[in-house]
Amino acid sequence: MGEDPFRVAGTTYLSRLLVGTGKFASHQVMRDALIASGADIVTVALRRVDLSRAGEGDVLDFVPAGMTLLPNTSGALDAAEALRLARLGRAATGTGLVKLEVTPDPRTLAPDPIETLRAAELMVADGFTVLPYCSADPVLARRLEEAGCATVMPLGSWIGSNRGLRTRDAIEAIVETAGIPVVVDAGLGAPSDAAEAMEIGADAVLVNTAIAISADPVAMARAFALATLAGRLARLAGRARAGGATEASASSPLTGF
Amino acid sequence: MGEDPFRVAGTTYLSRLLVGTGKFASHQVMRDALIASGADIVTVALRRVDLSRAGEGDVLDFVPAGMTLLPNTSGALDAAEALRLARLGRAATGTGLVKLEVTPDPRTLAPDPIETLRAAELMVADGFTVLPYCSADPVLARRLEEAGCATVMPLGSWIGSNRGLRTRDAIEAIVETAGIPVVVDAGLGAPSDAAEAMEIGADAVLVNTAIAISADPVAMARAFALATLAGRLARLAGRARAGGATEASASSPLTGF
Amino acid sequence: MGEDPFRVAGTTYLSRLLVGTGKFASHQVMRDALIASGADIVTVALRRVDLSRAGEGDVLDFVPAGMTLLPNTSGALDAAEALRLARLGRAATGTGLVKLEVTPDPRTLAPDPIETLRAAELMVADGFTVLPYCSADPVLARRLEEAGCATVMPLGSWIGSNRGLRTRDAIEAIVETAGIPVVVDAGLGAPSDAAEAMEIGADAVLVNTAIAISADPVAMARAFALATLAGRLARLAGRARAGGATEASASSPLTGF
Amino acid sequence: MGEDPFRVAGTTYLSRLLVGTGKFASHQVMRDALIASGADIVTVALRRVDLSRAGEGDVLDFVPAGMTLLPNTSGALDAAEALRLARLGRAATGTGLVKLEVTPDPRTLAPDPIETLRAAELMVADGFTVLPYCSADPVLARRLEEAGCATVMPLGSWIGSNRGLRTRDAIEAIVETAGIPVVVDAGLGAPSDAAEAMEIGADAVLVNTAIAISADPVAMARAFALATLAGRLARLAGRARAGGATEASASSPLTGF
Repeated sequence: MGEDPFRVAGTTYLSRLLVGTGKFASHQVMRDALIASGADIVTVALRRVDLSRAGEGDVLDFVPAGMTLLPNTSGALDAAEALRLARLGRAATGTGLVKLEVTPDPRTLAPDPIETLRAAELMVADGFTVLPYCSADPVLARRLEEAGCATVMPLGSWIGSNRGLRTRDAIEAIVETAGIPVVVDAGLGAPSDAAEAMEIGADAVLVNTAIAISADPVAMARAFALATLAGRLARLAGRARAGGATEASASSPLTGF
Repeated sequence: MGEDPFRVAGTTYLSRLLVGTGKFASHQVMRDALIASGADIVTVALRRVDLSRAGEGDVLDFVPAGMTLLPNTSGALDAAEALRLARLGRAATGTGLVKLEVTPDPRTLAPDPIETLRAAELMVADGFTVLPYCSADPVLARRLEEAGCATVMPLGSWIGSNRGLRTRDAIEAIVETAGIPVVVDAGLGAPSDAAEAMEIGADAVLVNTAIAISADPVAMARAFALATLAGRLARLAGRARAGGATEASASSPLTGF
Repeated sequence: MGEDPFRVAGTTYLSRLLVGTGKFASHQVMRDALIASGADIVTVALRRVDLSRAGEGDVLDFVPAGMTLLPNTSGALDAAEALRLARLGRAATGTGLVKLEVTPDPRTLAPDPIETLRAAELMVADGFTVLPYCSADPVLARRLEEAGCATVMPLGSWIGSNRGLRTRDAIEAIVETAGIPVVVDAGLGAPSDAAEAMEIGADAVLVNTAIAISADPVAMARAFALATLAGRLARLAGRARAGGATEASASSPLTGF
Repeated sequence: MGEDPFRVAGTTYLSRLLVGTGKFASHQVMRDALIASGADIVTVALRRVDLSRAGEGDVLDFVPAGMTLLPNTSGALDAAEALRLARLGRAATGTGLVKLEVTPDPRTLAPDPIETLRAAELMVADGFTVLPYCSADPVLARRLEEAGCATVMPLGSWIGSNRGLRTRDAIEAIVETAGIPVVVDAGLGAPSDAAEAMEIGADAVLVNTAIAISADPVAMARAFALATLAGRLARLAGRARAGGATEASASSPLTGF
């Protein structure tokens, strides 16, 4: 797949599966799953990182070498808090990449469109490379692109819900006109969901909960990696059109004998 | 995956993706796609085979060596015709394997439950190893198993329709109690469909049209192979449960700092 | 709606909502819900009827006068048992109408296609007017029609599951060619499900559980009645076509001013 | 239904179906459909209204007497344009009600979350009673409520697409916490869609295209009216829970005889 790189802000990655680090039973299981996922980009909640690095066993110590760290602002309730977290993270980790999350609704953890756009503008102005978690909203996606974001990351369904790709039409609309990569983030609960997102044209997917809380996170990480690649291949190959509700088409046209 | 073999009638296969041979633009493209699919079992319509083998360029000449041929009775309108086709095929190909298809409805090519069961009984009595294409019907599946079939092959959606897994509840019900392999056959239009079928417990899937009519059948064959494996891995790993419609669950539980 | 009668076996009914009598909290609640439903046809399990009529409080005593009783063979495990039940019912109730049910699978209560067809043939030969509960299977539906059934009653989803119309493609295929009324029976869990079944061309729907176990069965019965009529009106009016996944069409074309 | 009023900004309405006036074949057909719909609230694009009222045959002349006019800002590309339209409309029609629409994306006509909120704030400050068309976004809905809007009107699917309720989870989330009425607006293509929106707790629905472009708009209007009422009744009655994918529950529990 060297001929099909995934580019974000000028950097090229091989894998189109991004993974998260929350909810794993242990740091070691997380590490094994990250390796199995083949991911190049790993997101970590800034609040969970021991930024002083004084202690032992910090989550960052278990992220395999060579993976690109993508700090996120999980838990931020407004733009100001997100910016503060991002700056602390940059100071501690040295990376200007940030996954922007502003999620004031405690039930759905749905992203706040207003504060997310505001934070994106502030972060871009401050030199960050911004990957915003956002509603599956084509107008907002356009505005985030215009604000200088490196990707848009529209939701498939609520964070951690494993409900799959419940925003399909909107993702298709975003994909049609986006000039930056579209990464479907949140809610993908099974490899089939990741494949579906890729088939409709997402450039990448981000998965955390479905891997982390599986009975076998390592196998599930590998499953998502394969499915993401499958969906990408299918997108490039040109998916066959579906027929009408009452139309079949013989696979084996008969020639008689 | 040597530890996860797919067994049919006492024989072990590595791949859980079965493929068909209809609708390809050329025999050579078909051959390349079959190889890319990694399939162990390849189905061929008996009517399309030049059983006399007198001519050149027969489809069988393009099936890669080492693949198991699964002749099918595509086009049969009743049990008697299916049996006649199966016997001709056995005489010509030497295999007792048969994919039983009785599809009298020209619109949907839906399988006939009555004639399919009758044909299965006749074929089993005649020594065939029978893999019947059937409705996604848990009672019929049970009866086909009791009749001595080697698998059941319930439909996902109409043959060639690419409409995906539109019989999900019924497939789940069949999987729960079947004592023989369940192979979802027909209608799977994208790799995500194959992954989904495997995630809910199908033992294998059969795909033809979605590969054959893709703009790039070789890439699409590989995509289905990866997705089928992904779905199987996810099934074994234990899929995470989905949450309620309005419930999120933070991927990154906060610990503060 | 006098200009849109629902005909079964030569008799004309006004309502296209058929209702069942199981699972109600009391006979009186059932009676009130039946009245609210506006149904003309009411199905009763023969096993629940006190055929001797010796006792008091039999369910039949609570069926409003003027409604057509449709005895069903609920619980029958094969054709012979269904026929025996039907005959007992006819002797006791005097009607030759029978809702044929043969459901040997205790999990799904899915109808047995083989025994259902056999029972239908036996019952027709014995003079019954047969309304068979069946799989959503277009070939079986055709065979039941050829056997002389008065309707076909394909399932929407498993009995009592309230999962809705999960067999939509198959119902559409049955509707396209059926020469007898198509009544979607089982699984319709909300008025929207009943409306959807009618919109795709069902002639009628049968609802029991969703009404009976609602907190307010009388209101729910009325809701199903309205939705069934709504779906029918929409079918006759010609439903508007849906657009593509990323296409809008302004409701208010602009003329400027 | 006098005991179940629909209140918007202190006014009580009987019908929970709001209708639009675009796309009808003629003003007379529109008028007949509006009457058949039983709607109390009718939306009209300000740009289509001949505000000078100098001409004849203006759409307003065909809105039945007694219906509440809800001018909308259809076609506005930003908050300033929406406000200007609203003010012109108020001057011409005398009503302070406004359906706010800001839809800069010509493909999807998706509402702009940023400009919609901005316009809502400006309009509320200017004394309007604001009913905003918006994304199905629970955080935005909350913000619009906090800005003083009289309702929120989240989309079911793209305007005029007839794709139905493709934002179900988000609508459920909005319904759970909204302190103002939730009116599902846009994309409802069949009466079953309207019923479904009401069943999950919407307070009302707005339908235009599906009625206007039906072959029989009058019948379709009546169908939507019935389905909306059916969905509301079902919501109040308490919808029955759906069972698992492989679980049935006999409607007719057997007592033997």
